[in-house]
Amino acid sequence: MAIKQTKRAAVKKNRANSGVKVALLGFGTVGGAVARVLAASRFQGVELTHIFNRNVDRKRSSAAAKAVPASVVWTDSIDVILRSDVDVVVELMGGLNPVEGWLRKALTAGTSVVTANKQLIAYRGTGLAKLAEKHNVHLLHGAAVAGGVPVIPGMLQGLCGDQVTRLSGIVNGTCNYILSRMEAGADYSTVLADAQQLGYAEVDPAADVDGYDARAKLCILSRIAMHAELDPDAVAMQTISAIEAIDFSYAKELNCTIRQVSRAELDGKLVHARVAPMLVPLASPMAWSHGTQNMVVVSGRFGGDVVFSGHGAGGEPTAVAVVSDLLAVAQGCKSVELPLRRREVTGDFFAPHYLRFVVDDKPGIVSAISGALSKVGANIDSLLQRRGYPKHRLPFVVTTEPCLSSTIERALASVARMDCMLEKPLCLQMLEVEDKAE
Amino acid sequence: MAIKQTKRAAVKKNRANSGVKVALLGFGTVGGAVARVLAASRFQGVELTHIFNRNVDRKRSSAAAKAVPASVVWTDSIDVILRSDVDVVVELMGGLNPVEGWLRKALTAGTSVVTANKQLIAYRGTGLAKLAEKHNVHLLHGAAVAGGVPVIPGMLQGLCGDQVTRLSGIVNGTCNYILSRMEAGADYSTVLADAQQLGYAEVDPAADVDGYDARAKLCILSRIAMHAELDPDAVAMQTISAIEAIDFSYAKELNCTIRQVSRAELDGKLVHARVAPMLVPLASPMAWSHGTQNMVVVSGRFGGDVVFSGHGAGGEPTAVAVVSDLLAVAQGCKSVELPLRRREVTGDFFAPHYLRFVVDDKPGIVSAISGALSKVGANIDSLLQRRGYPKHRLPFVVTTEPCLSSTIERALASVARMDCMLEKPLCLQMLEVEDKAE
Repeated sequence: MAIKQTKRAAVKKNRANSGVKVALLGFGTVGGAVARVLAASRFQGVELTHIFNRNVDRKRSSAAAKAVPASVVWTDSIDVILRSDVDVVVELMGGLNPVEGWLRKALTAGTSVVTANKQLIAYRGTGLAKLAEKHNVHLLHGAAVAGGVPVIPGMLQGLCGDQVTRLSGIVNGTCNYILSRMEAGADYSTVLADAQQLGYAEVDPAADVDGYDARAKLCILSRIAMHAELDPDAVAMQTISAIEAIDFSYAKELNCTIRQVSRAELDGKLVHARVAPMLVPLASPMAWSHGTQNMVVVSGRFGGDVVFSGHGAGGEPTAVAVVSDLLAVAQGCKSVELPLRRREVTGDFFAPHYLRFVVDDKPGIVSAISGALSKVGANIDSLLQRRGYPKHRLPFVVTTEPCLSSTIERALASVARMDCMLEKPLCLQMLEVEDKAE
Repeated sequence: MAIKQTKRAAVKKNRANSGVKVALLGFGTVGGAVARVLAASRFQGVELTHIFNRNVDRKRSSAAAKAVPASVVWTDSIDVILRSDVDVVVELMGGLNPVEGWLRKALTAGTSVVTANKQLIAYRGTGLAKLAEKHNVHLLHGAAVAGGVPVIPGMLQGLCGDQVTRLSGIVNGTCNYILSRMEAGADYSTVLADAQQLGYAEVDPAADVDGYDARAKLCILSRIAMHAELDPDAVAMQTISAIEAIDFSYAKELNCTIRQVSRAELDGKLVHARVAPMLVPLASPMAWSHGTQNMVVVSGRFGGDVVFSGHGAGGEPTAVAVVSDLLAVAQGCKSVELPLRRREVTGDFFAPHYLRFVVDDKPGIVSAISGALSKVGANIDSLLQRRGYPKHRLPFVVTTEPCLSSTIERALASVARMDCMLEKPLCLQMLEVEDKAE
């Protein structure tokens, strides 16, 4: 593995100067929190000088603006920012267009970038990093995954010496909030509505509940922890919207709960990757993660499992990551870099599966289902059918021994066509707890 | 807060050279693992060239030596190392004397240091860091706390933007192993003997069970997370050896378990710090930590609670931290630095307390104890007395509402003198779970 080297591994001294000037792009929840943290901590050498936002006058008179120094230039023109003498832009707007173009201009002009933009970093991060290096500036994105949880610096600086073979995480606070509330008995639509009201979910919640947000984060984590460059569009996703209360009941009987899990596993030159609701054992750290918390579990060949957990969303936790990155830029810090490899990705996993059917009950259903499974070589591990449900709308569960997801899906394709099926069968991976022996 | 600044926050480019030459001081469990990790990963630019150990011939012919390149110079003379052209020494021997002198010589001669030595870094770390800076070399010690868990880089680079007000941790694997086994029903002496046999505890286990090891780590964490320089000798410790099976039974009734907790809390210019067995709620992440795992929970004003957990001990996890630090040295990396402040430390905490008495039962005991407590202003929260214990050797528990430890200890001083007391009363803090609202 080629790595950069220095003469005598000397620490480079910083040259004193008048500090770094900072522009915020976006003054929403996180932007306001960044201003608050900077005002409260008064780090010398980090000076907020510009704020960009559309409808900037409304922002300027908001309560959050009270934390902003009077000397700051507020503008709704990105050109004012790009033509200014700021040293760092903090990008908090999200999305690819037009942000990517702006940041490329900034980097090319010798301005460092600190960003929370997971889609940008997932899809374009490697190219932008090369551009930053070419122009001798920083591109930092600790805020893009698990806001207040130092996963990115922790993995970069602390686990670069290991060979990380797999990682899994709960990285979308919206899904975690929804599923935790459903675990406690609430139903999906009610909780989703609450989440939208609390600002945990957008009017169009698809980015969260269908997995787009988590997928971008998974690609970023794979890049950092496993040095594996994935095409985000190739990473399989499964929505959480098909989960029902009955699934939590059955999961509990299996000593599990349900979380939206993002997982990736190195397998030679291939990476298995998937974002989906999965059953997690109650004994595993992921079962403990609830509300809007985020958690990342990284497994290394030599170090075993490492767990990071904390508040992954919200203005102030994300602002902590942003400000920490700003300090790194201000002090000319540098992290370990190891070469990346582009990897092919598959959504197929060898795992036990949880299958939930809702049928109009009649004789022969279990026989037909187990026939379809054994036909593809999948073994049934357990069958759960609780009392108290109407026969014309009967939910029951089959769990399988470990087998390939693709195999199960093949079997389910024929089962789904059976007359008695009232809903599309639900198929969830079951996460197994494995760790280095102690 | 004064921080170092750079012109335009530019990233400094590394100059290519022939790589860093590395000397291992100590070829024990961790040294052998470091050699294994380096051999397996073959990081370019990191070359193991020297190994120092007493009785070096025995080490040289050990199984662990198979991972060591044939070109390596094995020596039992520290002068051979200090006079060599190595760029980095990796110190894995432990203790202050004579290691401190050797490392001061190394740093002064322009050789970087990577160490796992918690006592050295706790007592002398700040002075050694200044020496390293003066000679433009690195001093890194990620391996000194929670081996394979990237707590130090995570807090340094990821939480420098927050204001960390408290931290608590389970940082001694030996105690965690012993207490986890007692939680499962084993008795202290049996488990201690097992731990010694497994290599989790020394012949003289005092460093672990009495808290010296954890105390050094707590001081290091306080320095990094809270920028607070503590005198380790001033940090209160309490042994775990007084814990008995009955305490786990009563803890369970209180929905708690018992762990050796190291905690520190910023309180204006003062730091409350203590290493002791404490009751931790079963709902808290610390209850989940078991076996030789380590866990650190850091609470910041803006980010709330962040949890790091993983294998904190053992050759390979510790080697991950060492090799990650070696890569940082090899690549001329640099972390954020914020000014430290020396802080006075007190072992006094305002917390609920668990008091366990073993008495020769007779009328009036509870009355006398509650009298002694109310005399100092402490309120009883609960009283637990289980059936099935002999009256002449009766264990029972009183828990108090939050009050100062010093207050409780005053009350207990008089209670301990009562005729009926068969053992010194056991007093343990009860950790409360508080976190930022979500």
